[in-house]
Amino acid sequence: MTRMINKQKDIVSQVLNGVTYIYKDRLTRIPKTGIVLKKKLVKNKVALISGGGSGHEPAHFGYIGNGMLDGTISGPVFTPPSAKEILEAIQLADQGCGTLLIIKNFEADRTNFLEAQKQAKLLGYKVDHVIVDDDCSVVSDRGEYSPRRRGVAGSVFVHKILGQAAKEGRNLEELVKLGKEVVSSLNTLGVAFSSGTDMETNEPLFNMNQHVVSFGIGIHGEQGYREEVFYSSEHLANELINKLLNQYQDDDRFAVLVNGTGSSTLMEQYIFANDVDRLLKLQQKESAFQLCGEFMTSTDMKGISLSLLSLKEEYWLDYLQADTDAFAWR
Amino acid sequence: MTRMINKQKDIVSQVLNGVTYIYKDRLTRIPKTGIVLKKKLVKNKVALISGGGSGHEPAHFGYIGNGMLDGTISGPVFTPPSAKEILEAIQLADQGCGTLLIIKNFEADRTNFLEAQKQAKLLGYKVDHVIVDDDCSVVSDRGEYSPRRRGVAGSVFVHKILGQAAKEGRNLEELVKLGKEVVSSLNTLGVAFSSGTDMETNEPLFNMNQHVVSFGIGIHGEQGYREEVFYSSEHLANELINKLLNQYQDDDRFAVLVNGTGSSTLMEQYIFANDVDRLLKLQQKESAFQLCGEFMTSTDMKGISLSLLSLKEEYWLDYLQADTDAFAWR
Repeated sequence: MTRMINKQKDIVSQVLNGVTYIYKDRLTRIPKTGIVLKKKLVKNKVALISGGGSGHEPAHFGYIGNGMLDGTISGPVFTPPSAKEILEAIQLADQGCGTLLIIKNFEADRTNFLEAQKQAKLLGYKVDHVIVDDDCSVVSDRGEYSPRRRGVAGSVFVHKILGQAAKEGRNLEELVKLGKEVVSSLNTLGVAFSSGTDMETNEPLFNMNQHVVSFGIGIHGEQGYREEVFYSSEHLANELINKLLNQYQDDDRFAVLVNGTGSSTLMEQYIFANDVDRLLKLQQKESAFQLCGEFMTSTDMKGISLSLLSLKEEYWLDYLQADTDAFAWR
Repeated sequence: MTRMINKQKDIVSQVLNGVTYIYKDRLTRIPKTGIVLKKKLVKNKVALISGGGSGHEPAHFGYIGNGMLDGTISGPVFTPPSAKEILEAIQLADQGCGTLLIIKNFEADRTNFLEAQKQAKLLGYKVDHVIVDDDCSVVSDRGEYSPRRRGVAGSVFVHKILGQAAKEGRNLEELVKLGKEVVSSLNTLGVAFSSGTDMETNEPLFNMNQHVVSFGIGIHGEQGYREEVFYSSEHLANELINKLLNQYQDDDRFAVLVNGTGSSTLMEQYIFANDVDRLLKLQQKESAFQLCGEFMTSTDMKGISLSLLSLKEEYWLDYLQADTDAFAWR
């Protein structure tokens, strides 16, 4: 497949230049880095920073805005940013009230973000973090399944709720506590129909058979734990909803995220969302808030993920519904 | 490629149910029709209606909102809605100040929308229309090229400017006049790297060679007028900008729309947008407003279109920048 790029080595830099051209009213890129900042940083609030490898657009820069993130750092495709750049972002975003790092639970991401946190603290900055591990996929080792708990698309609910909480004046300790509560109520499961392309090599991210759906894929081209024949959107929605609801007790009120992973058409995403709506109603579960679209992609992988957040507190819903100018939240 | 659908015959209906589930706070579907309406219609303003075949999501329902459209009608995939349903939408949306139909310039669309306008007038409704023909592709007949002037992605600028004008109290005659001015300042050219899929038959929309780019494709799988080897995003941006600027005299201030047609990654779209930004600056043209993303797709066609709107009046920019809750405008 033709890739609409220029030189290989310029991909990430030109993506960042492009997005900060389109949203020049609200985003600024720090030249020669993967750092994108809110153009007008707000004083007297905790700064919120997230980031990760490129290839997940509109994550993460799409979530910079009032009541969401203050800055993001994009690394190379599927590779987290360096501790050095994360440290620089902390220094730039800090407004005297401390900085919260929102980290997706991958070893390489944890390592670099926590190293930056350590270095920033040595320099006198107040920094803490929340680790998002919403993925309820499993990994098989000789027939034994164990949970993976990677950080995937549900992260955007964490950005929104913590972002609004920071806007309303919560301090760093309160945000860490709230973040842990939200993360523990959040589950995501993703499937793929095609592997998508590694933007740097133009090779498939992994090998997949035709007419099957792969359960539990990751966002960096990690293969799923099981392939099954694809029957219908409704059949798939039923499987995903049941696997997700198994993570809860008798929770009955949810925020729902249907996330396209790159090449699923919006038609397919809405058809799937309609199945989710009907099946949740059948199980007497309320969808109190819902999103559908491309929120965290894996380049052009054709697939979908479903996230459920149990709305344990009424104000979480208010925070999800609050206005923001983050362009990817809609 | 696996299609994430249920039964063939239910595609459009389930898409409409899905999108009105996701945006149930602001959109309502009229059951058993392709009609989607703004949930809270605003009194004492001209109603704005658009629509067309399905397969272009988020067009057109994504442009329903404050300061944009009041209703849309979705037909079968790549087939315009019937005059009967368009008439029903007029009757439902009308708030006593008349209705403006925004029609994309395809023969079948014109026929059905204008038949509905005629019937509505016989019933006593005040209705008029604007035809959008932003496409500056050409069609070749034995070596002679003639312009096609179909209605394509630039339509969303027309929805926004006329929508804001209607919100600010312009009457039907004024909107028709303004619509013609905006359309005459608007040009779009689209290219494809792959044909995309007919969602109903699961066949390619047209045949294309590998590693080429097809110029002047339509939004319903119409083939382009010329295939060329693909060199780079920058080379492509340069070609498109020059072809578009040829449509103008010395206009120097534009609104810019980079539109992904379905399967182009956001990375590729932003890389292309960055090239557009640099090349416009080189030609001393100002990009005063810009959008990038999927605004009018052709199912999963991999391609891109570029639209330029010459900002002949300063208030057009104000109208483009005005807030709206139409979910696809961002």
